[in-house]
Amino acid sequence: MSADNDQQAREQLIDLAAQFYDQFELGEIPHMSVPTRTKNNIEYDEDKDVWVYGDRESTRSANSVRGARKLLKAVYTIEFLADQLEEDRSSTLRELYYLSESWDNDNAQFTSQDESNSLVEDLEIVSGVTREDFHMRPEESGAKVMGPLHIREQTKRGDRDIHCQLDVGQGGYQIPNNPDMIEFLDNDADFVLCVETGGMRDRLVENGFDEEYDAIVVHLGGQPARATRRLTKRFHDELGLPVVVFTDGDPWSYRIYGSVAYGSIKSAHLSEYLATPEADYIGIQPADIVEYDLPTDPLSDSDINALESELEDPRFQTDYWEEQIELQLEIGKKSEQQSLASHGLDFVTDTYLPERLDAMGVI
Amino acid sequence: MSADNDQQAREQLIDLAAQFYDQFELGEIPHMSVPTRTKNNIEYDEDKDVWVYGDRESTRSANSVRGARKLLKAVYTIEFLADQLEEDRSSTLRELYYLSESWDNDNAQFTSQDESNSLVEDLEIVSGVTREDFHMRPEESGAKVMGPLHIREQTKRGDRDIHCQLDVGQGGYQIPNNPDMIEFLDNDADFVLCVETGGMRDRLVENGFDEEYDAIVVHLGGQPARATRRLTKRFHDELGLPVVVFTDGDPWSYRIYGSVAYGSIKSAHLSEYLATPEADYIGIQPADIVEYDLPTDPLSDSDINALESELEDPRFQTDYWEEQIELQLEIGKKSEQQSLASHGLDFVTDTYLPERLDAMGVI
Repeated sequence: MSADNDQQAREQLIDLAAQFYDQFELGEIPHMSVPTRTKNNIEYDEDKDVWVYGDRESTRSANSVRGARKLLKAVYTIEFLADQLEEDRSSTLRELYYLSESWDNDNAQFTSQDESNSLVEDLEIVSGVTREDFHMRPEESGAKVMGPLHIREQTKRGDRDIHCQLDVGQGGYQIPNNPDMIEFLDNDADFVLCVETGGMRDRLVENGFDEEYDAIVVHLGGQPARATRRLTKRFHDELGLPVVVFTDGDPWSYRIYGSVAYGSIKSAHLSEYLATPEADYIGIQPADIVEYDLPTDPLSDSDINALESELEDPRFQTDYWEEQIELQLEIGKKSEQQSLASHGLDFVTDTYLPERLDAMGVI
Repeated sequence: MSADNDQQAREQLIDLAAQFYDQFELGEIPHMSVPTRTKNNIEYDEDKDVWVYGDRESTRSANSVRGARKLLKAVYTIEFLADQLEEDRSSTLRELYYLSESWDNDNAQFTSQDESNSLVEDLEIVSGVTREDFHMRPEESGAKVMGPLHIREQTKRGDRDIHCQLDVGQGGYQIPNNPDMIEFLDNDADFVLCVETGGMRDRLVENGFDEEYDAIVVHLGGQPARATRRLTKRFHDELGLPVVVFTDGDPWSYRIYGSVAYGSIKSAHLSEYLATPEADYIGIQPADIVEYDLPTDPLSDSDINALESELEDPRFQTDYWEEQIELQLEIGKKSEQQSLASHGLDFVTDTYLPERLDAMGVI
């Protein structure tokens, strides 16, 4: 399966390079068009229920020295990636940047890592192949999983069968860089609970929440890595499990939910691969701050700006989010998920989560 | 073993509270003295080969309302920790801060998390018990391990026997919050290689470096968590393995090495528990930047300031570090560990690390 994927990714890359040859033959100046990656150019796809790029495009064309150099870099990178797939190797974005110093043509070398990162994104978009399928590893791997789930991970050293409660320590199962190497063997899970902070993740594991509620607890670790988002989506799509997201109650954390559910502007081309639009937000809701009388901090100016900008963000233009964000601006307060401990260490697992999950119809 | 530890930690906490009773009986104003935690008050312990606090002390005394309130908070915290140990529970520093809101005496409640964090550090220092032995979990757990090592982790759900190559995925074995719950069963390791970045850690694992060189590869993930430093020390002390630290070649990364080898100013009271003074720095050395002709970035003003402040830092006052830091100031450049990729993706495992390990006498 993996070898087939590799072959397909390789062909799509080579097709890209072949386009330049076709353009030469037709007497055209070689060029490549990619969607503009700004907030103004993402729109809601009603069919697929995720945010995707709109119709605006930027063109890299060889009609200027600058444009020609960009295309040269693209061709060198395509060759590197095609070789990497052929040899079943992988590398990081940062390694690609440095590796370009060894290329024979100085004009093909990257001048900054932003440039090489952005080129790889362009290639993802125009080829329709994800970075992971190019074997480009992220700098940091995904977070960790604990729950009633038996998986098989295909590694270079052979297959590993791992039960994500019985075969792992307290730290759980570490998500690999490319979670498509994971096969789901079987599971007893009822839902997936994504948790922002390590402290709260450890609380849930210590209290045995994953065992009592047959939950797969996924640690997000702040803004989640692509691997974590991809695996969460696979839990939903392939295992049919509801996904709920549990974060701090502040605008930065709503964006964490947003990136799990709707994808980010930067990776709108990957929404279908990474986003779980059915994921629901469990809390901390501004309404919870009031209802559960949680300890709070006042909203800072940058919090207020972030909330106001979320009211303009297409991802948050729903009745639910408008109500919550307006309530938060009104009360002027935010709360962390661990503030639930003000009612005792078991309050989150005995009271808060069961009440919220019940209200949301998950349990 | 763990239950004994718990009992001992509990007794040492209760002894602290008992001191206040003794002071009352003697007609003294209750007080508690702790070493001053600043750079001027750390000194080198020749016998133990680590940096420890000097003789300067600060006293919290009930002769002022502010001091009395501090001691009240200490007593409430001691009671909470003693109960936690009795019930075999654990919590995070942040949970402790929030939990104080549920305490019956408003004066005992913490006004900021800095205050509760700092109190727990005081208690560690005066009781000689580590935070982990109080069952205070860090917010973030340690990083991950890959290598020829078979361990048993004692968890609340039973013991887990895990081989750190054969029983884990590509992500490796996730270090638990308290690595003293790990028992070393057996191993074929020749040395421990601590690696700063995730990208480089993944490169070493992809290239099979841990298998070829019988190395335990420990991912530090930037400034290493206490759990990661503790486990590294245990590898050295209990398994007799040499430890080498592999980071970027810049002043911030030398501090990462410094915290593995000598501990930090903030946790000088824990040096004996966390620091591995025998750990050696493998690179990227300023000398490597020259010798291997690595791609560089110019030193920024803050880099230069940091290097100059390291020349004043007792941890870096050795011939080796003075020579390297002065060389770096002279060339005015820094390099990342992944810049080795400018000589190809295998250069680090085929050439750089073997040459350095050989020169250091590790292999």
